[in-house]
Amino acid sequence: MEKTLIYEGKAKKIFKISGNEKEYLQEFKDDATAFNGVKKDQIKNKGKVNNQITSVIFDLLNNSGIKTHFIKKVSENSMIVSIVDIIKVEVVCRNIAAGSLVKKFAFKEGETLKNPLVEFYYKSDELGDPLFSEDHILLLELATSDEMKHIRNETLKINEILKTFFLSKGLKLVDFKLEFGRDLNGEIILADEISPDTCRLWDKVSNKKMDKDRFRFDLGEVEESYDEVMRRVTN
Amino acid sequence: MEKTLIYEGKAKKIFKISGNEKEYLQEFKDDATAFNGVKKDQIKNKGKVNNQITSVIFDLLNNSGIKTHFIKKVSENSMIVSIVDIIKVEVVCRNIAAGSLVKKFAFKEGETLKNPLVEFYYKSDELGDPLFSEDHILLLELATSDEMKHIRNETLKINEILKTFFLSKGLKLVDFKLEFGRDLNGEIILADEISPDTCRLWDKVSNKKMDKDRFRFDLGEVEESYDEVMRRVTN
Repeated sequence: MEKTLIYEGKAKKIFKISGNEKEYLQEFKDDATAFNGVKKDQIKNKGKVNNQITSVIFDLLNNSGIKTHFIKKVSENSMIVSIVDIIKVEVVCRNIAAGSLVKKFAFKEGETLKNPLVEFYYKSDELGDPLFSEDHILLLELATSDEMKHIRNETLKINEILKTFFLSKGLKLVDFKLEFGRDLNGEIILADEISPDTCRLWDKVSNKKMDKDRFRFDLGEVEESYDEVMRRVTN
Repeated sequence: MEKTLIYEGKAKKIFKISGNEKEYLQEFKDDATAFNGVKKDQIKNKGKVNNQITSVIFDLLNNSGIKTHFIKKVSENSMIVSIVDIIKVEVVCRNIAAGSLVKKFAFKEGETLKNPLVEFYYKSDELGDPLFSEDHILLLELATSDEMKHIRNETLKINEILKTFFLSKGLKLVDFKLEFGRDLNGEIILADEISPDTCRLWDKVSNKKMDKDRFRFDLGEVEESYDEVMRRVTN
């Protein structure tokens, strides 16, 4: 397969596949960054682990009526995905208070929210991914009002599917980040990845953090936790 | 009139009036603060000027079908207002890009927005009044969904009334902050003040800033600009 790099993010590379006008190759890197790129390192096997976890989860979502860009896993650290134009909005959905909800809004860490909270962040490294609202999204013409309604509904559906799935694997889904894009027909579909890089996952019994917070806050056992999530998710 | 201080904010004091169960006395101070209280000073006559401007504007709004807490001006620096329970949401409405829209979202200062932008900030000095969305407001139970719909509609109506009014006085209404409260019947009404402390106002011809930005950024002629706004508004 002849491939040309067309985009490199902090955790993934996207390649154009020669002779294929409908699909990209999405490759997962071992690179880990936090705090908007200020903290940088590598997590051994992360590319492989996140590719595996994302494949299982996107397969589950595809089979649950959620349209995603995932087509198939093609190597340890890469997958074939539909071509999408990514919407510059990071969608966060929260079930339990953690992270910026604690720091910025004085929620108590671990507090279960009465309802899932949907938040929107401007996907812009230069601006530091600031929290904003649908009003900013419409003004900046990042998406239409109908598209945002669809994105919100899909996010809440995905939350229910993932909460149930992770709980069956002994993990609490604290919060997670999604990215959506427009496919070649202009339809909004789920893109990016779903992994311990983009979800907060706590062990159901011990509340042990099993996600990127171990890297962010130097909690140790980073690789081990990613591996354990993969083990549980694929079992 | 016997009065008891029941609340002191950065720019105003609220007094309970002995024997009066329906009204408060709202007194405007000369104190000026910026950057969440980090910068502090006094602006000569500000209390008097902002009381005068707020009185004229709230009178205009009352006569335009907007329900406000304003009843009457009773001294140079004070007014009688209906008792309200303030909703802990600062509502900002923007017509032209300035301030945090420039700093946080890379708009160009002075750029006219395609549509008025309504923003919500958590009214919390401890948390630094962070930008948030209706989703946070509902989760924090600061207001109901119906109340927020009403607040948004009233804000856009007030914007149209004020834009026209200020333009007739040779001033562009760049943006402004509103606070709403629940009156003794539980009805949402406009409260707080509308003044050069809470509006960005630029001269229609020269674009000279005629508001608190002169104090924030040490632009000089602070008192003179507040006075000039009062002179124009009352003429």
